[in-house]
Amino acid sequence: MLTVYGYSPSGNSHKLRMLLGHLGREFRWVEMDIIGGGTRTPEYLAKNPNGKAPMIELDDGRTLAESDAILYWLAEGTPYFAGDAWERAQTMSWMFFEQYSHEPFVAVARFICGWTPLDSPRRADLPKLRERGRQALAVMETHLSTHPWFSGRGYGIADIALFGYTHVAEDGGFRLADYPHVCEWIARVKAQPGYVAMPAYAPENDTLIAQSRT
Amino acid sequence: MLTVYGYSPSGNSHKLRMLLGHLGREFRWVEMDIIGGGTRTPEYLAKNPNGKAPMIELDDGRTLAESDAILYWLAEGTPYFAGDAWERAQTMSWMFFEQYSHEPFVAVARFICGWTPLDSPRRADLPKLRERGRQALAVMETHLSTHPWFSGRGYGIADIALFGYTHVAEDGGFRLADYPHVCEWIARVKAQPGYVAMPAYAPENDTLIAQSRT
Repeated sequence: MLTVYGYSPSGNSHKLRMLLGHLGREFRWVEMDIIGGGTRTPEYLAKNPNGKAPMIELDDGRTLAESDAILYWLAEGTPYFAGDAWERAQTMSWMFFEQYSHEPFVAVARFICGWTPLDSPRRADLPKLRERGRQALAVMETHLSTHPWFSGRGYGIADIALFGYTHVAEDGGFRLADYPHVCEWIARVKAQPGYVAMPAYAPENDTLIAQSRT
Repeated sequence: MLTVYGYSPSGNSHKLRMLLGHLGREFRWVEMDIIGGGTRTPEYLAKNPNGKAPMIELDDGRTLAESDAILYWLAEGTPYFAGDAWERAQTMSWMFFEQYSHEPFVAVARFICGWTPLDSPRRADLPKLRERGRQALAVMETHLSTHPWFSGRGYGIADIALFGYTHVAEDGGFRLADYPHVCEWIARVKAQPGYVAMPAYAPENDTLIAQSRT
């Protein structure tokens, strides 16, 4: 059986839970303490020298890292990575956009709000992260004004990749109401068959997020 | 004919020139003034709302952005994206590693050294960027200690993606001699049929890089 090493509140990890839910595929989930160094142990680094989650492991011990590469592998041959070569390349383009122009700002702002102390020096980065994150959300809004999905003609892995952190962007101080097409797209994603919601955060993360808003 | 919108000293743009050289494919190159806002004009943003280079354009006006997605599209059906589904997923994994864990540090350090004034406040970021960049180079070194390539059994698009900024990392203040397997891999890449070297920088960039070293 497929094993997923992930951290449940991580959008990158949640992408895999979502796609596996859509595919109705069984898997074993190993919850990683990414905050406490769980991905930096010698055992984990032997499997993924970059020391990040998520990662998947097959029964024969082979491993694959990078959330969007795992989506690509899981979706190959399914409707979640469909279309001709050009459409599939556009899907890949949005996944690279997500990792380069979206996640480092939208996800990191949320991480700082919910997973660092209120007096963390990292909070000084929030204005810049939010400015860059708003740019990414604006690019999504522009695309969604003329397209229903990011994965070619139907819902697929680029939508899952972008949904991972976009649907929880308000936890990082973003106002999703400013992006009405994004809000409608989030609703369409949540209506997909087999959709799995992100598990609840730990109470301390909820508290930090609430305190970051005031 | 394929049109590439790129900036010649950019590793991301150079990846495309490299693969097109290997493939022996003709193309038209439009040099973009990325420093002077050439990718932020209304005309360019209409083609790529994220305002980045490189981008390719087909004769019918369709466009594709994100260097590694373009590599994926160009290499489909060629030996540069070969192997079974698992090997291709590993290739994709290294390309996402490149864009998330390598480029934002190795490329940005080089950009600051060669493309910003000596009194730029961005130079304060260099120690942190170099620390993270060295981590990425160390991950590459670990992989190359047991594998000749990043693209499965042969040279391919993950090697091209990682080569783009790794082979010029010294311009960002990295010591490649600290990574002997990386140095040997760079030599193997340069020996590939159809290899195209990055064009020379403008004199002012060479001067800034030299001054950043002292």
